[in-house]
Amino acid sequence: MSGAFAFEVVASCGRARSGRFTTPHGTVPTPAFMPVGTKATVKGLTPDQLRATGTGFVLANTYHLVLRPGTALVRELGGLHRFMAWDGPILTDSGGYQVFSLSHLTRVDEQGATLRSVIDGELVELSPESAVDAQRDLGADVMMALDHCPGDPTDRVEVERATARTHRWLERCVRRFESSASHGEPQALFGIVQGGAFADLRARSVEAVTSHDLVGYAIGGVSVGEHESAMELAVDAAAPLMPTEKPRYLMGVGTPRDFYRAVRAGVDMFDCVTPTRHGRNHQVHTSLGRMNLRNSVWARDERPLDPDCTCATCTNFSRAYLRHLCNSGEILAGVLLSLHNVHFFQHLMERLRRAIASGTLASLEHEFVVALQQRAAPDGPHTSGADGAAAHDATRADS
Amino acid sequence: MSGAFAFEVVASCGRARSGRFTTPHGTVPTPAFMPVGTKATVKGLTPDQLRATGTGFVLANTYHLVLRPGTALVRELGGLHRFMAWDGPILTDSGGYQVFSLSHLTRVDEQGATLRSVIDGELVELSPESAVDAQRDLGADVMMALDHCPGDPTDRVEVERATARTHRWLERCVRRFESSASHGEPQALFGIVQGGAFADLRARSVEAVTSHDLVGYAIGGVSVGEHESAMELAVDAAAPLMPTEKPRYLMGVGTPRDFYRAVRAGVDMFDCVTPTRHGRNHQVHTSLGRMNLRNSVWARDERPLDPDCTCATCTNFSRAYLRHLCNSGEILAGVLLSLHNVHFFQHLMERLRRAIASGTLASLEHEFVVALQQRAAPDGPHTSGADGAAAHDATRADS
Repeated sequence: MSGAFAFEVVASCGRARSGRFTTPHGTVPTPAFMPVGTKATVKGLTPDQLRATGTGFVLANTYHLVLRPGTALVRELGGLHRFMAWDGPILTDSGGYQVFSLSHLTRVDEQGATLRSVIDGELVELSPESAVDAQRDLGADVMMALDHCPGDPTDRVEVERATARTHRWLERCVRRFESSASHGEPQALFGIVQGGAFADLRARSVEAVTSHDLVGYAIGGVSVGEHESAMELAVDAAAPLMPTEKPRYLMGVGTPRDFYRAVRAGVDMFDCVTPTRHGRNHQVHTSLGRMNLRNSVWARDERPLDPDCTCATCTNFSRAYLRHLCNSGEILAGVLLSLHNVHFFQHLMERLRRAIASGTLASLEHEFVVALQQRAAPDGPHTSGADGAAAHDATRADS
Repeated sequence: MSGAFAFEVVASCGRARSGRFTTPHGTVPTPAFMPVGTKATVKGLTPDQLRATGTGFVLANTYHLVLRPGTALVRELGGLHRFMAWDGPILTDSGGYQVFSLSHLTRVDEQGATLRSVIDGELVELSPESAVDAQRDLGADVMMALDHCPGDPTDRVEVERATARTHRWLERCVRRFESSASHGEPQALFGIVQGGAFADLRARSVEAVTSHDLVGYAIGGVSVGEHESAMELAVDAAAPLMPTEKPRYLMGVGTPRDFYRAVRAGVDMFDCVTPTRHGRNHQVHTSLGRMNLRNSVWARDERPLDPDCTCATCTNFSRAYLRHLCNSGEILAGVLLSLHNVHFFQHLMERLRRAIASGTLASLEHEFVVALQQRAAPDGPHTSGADGAAAHDATRADS
């Protein structure tokens, strides 16, 4: 692994592994969860608050930053780390996911994609080369190759075509990456495996993508739509074939339940808008399942959101107060609930890492599932069942 | 001064004085500025962030908390300090200001006021007695007597009537206060001087109000409407007549310019929604005057908001980044700008206190005025002129 980047597996348990991913902005233990800072801010949280949740890596969305304030401006101002005052590692996506999710605004051909700006309707060109250039401007530690997400992961013809294009685009990304230089600290490029819900296509995609010697590789196209079984299939088919000595990143996933499945298959990195978007919508994730803070059952409840949580929200505030903030439409509601949710996700990652090290991953997962089932009833309307379903509002930009 | 409360003047400079106001939740140096936490939250800021701005006292609005979540519920949950996790001193208003500002929803007679709830249209009774009871429920360190604000401070007939009623209501508040007990720590009652823009009526009101031996006294009815000269007149007429050994609180004021004027007349305490409301509206107060962060002139500006400021916003972020957050409608914009504005106000209070101690108040004020005039031009479109005018969006609830 080249220069400023290193990945080391420090413990494993079945296919699950715990490791250390080193970047120019620090070392992050894996499995790692990256909160989404779409427009160069993880919504509502200051860098200090974010750090206190145990967050190492942060993700930002290239497409949104191309639109505003423009990546050239971010470069001029010293890059994304300085711009958003985050001195830890940052990963930027390539905009490929937005080509898919904003498909009604997009024209895609072999050259690349043309998107209409959601801000002013202007046309924005996105190609493998411009995606690399934009991410050079941003200066994130890890940049992603431009991929082509198939619209329907179960449509074999569409998936084959999109996957082949993803491989051709990766060649072009690698060429551009190798012929360009960082404007500051060294950067790494990750390639993205496609292949939809087909094990053989995933395997072929792993082969094509890993034929490039990159710092890490991602599994894409699985947070898309309502294909939960496609996610499992894709992860099970791809992860075990990916190089053991490189980090494996499952894009746009997800919820606690998803993390167990994916970690078991050997995934090391995740990102998702869930904790912050749910927080703004008054939904919290706890060791007892999910809670909707608008529910009147919490009106007189003096307990913290989660008795097992040590975050600033749970340390200081009651459910009754947080419900009052939600009902009053207060900014602080979204801030405090997002803070708790991100902390909860990071704490879960920590528990996963410890369980891998001590060989107790299976019992941790069992405990998690049992807790959701058993504790939902006596403690009020925790909606544990919704936890899996929530994977699927897991888009990759938090807006 | 009774028991848990004490006020001590430690330095003076002309009529201006610097002091220490002790409450059951700590001692606050004066002149003191209280940010407004209308619904038991200073909008967007956590208690930790608020403390880091140098804030001691926080104000909350009784009327809003009566409507939601209800003061009985707050009492049940251990009082306002515990509810909102603010362990410093809290002052609650009586709802009198809302009787005035929501006059289209209000019927007032000698008994008290009946307001329609802005939430559900239900009728809410507010009397001198119920205002005390509600504030006993909330458990703030300082509660305010119910007053009757005249609609037009220059209409002598109306002002005389409202002022006389304020005095009769104060008698009833004092009786209720003395015949009731706190549910927790000791509480103090402040009376409110009315009298509009008439020096003789202000003088008579001071006499009537201070005939009750209370912990402190306030000047009311001056943040109302567009009567800037009425504010000066009222403060100049009332403050010098108020007992020197008790804190003097000017309600609902204001901006930096107002503070100089009022402190010169001997005022010790202020509250205003300005720093948080302006922050959410992308306006910041700086040592160079006011700035509108939406202005494109800041798009590439790497400097902090205020070169003289040590707040977390100025320490970490550029004007260009903050402008990006404002333009993107990000929650963090309101949070970071509110934080800066509150810090700026608290830092100004600190400078006022030091200037009083060192006898340099006049030169500090001169420096402030000159800075606004001289530095506005070269540094960009600081709108120093708007600083005075801003006093008059200074309502007493931040919503």
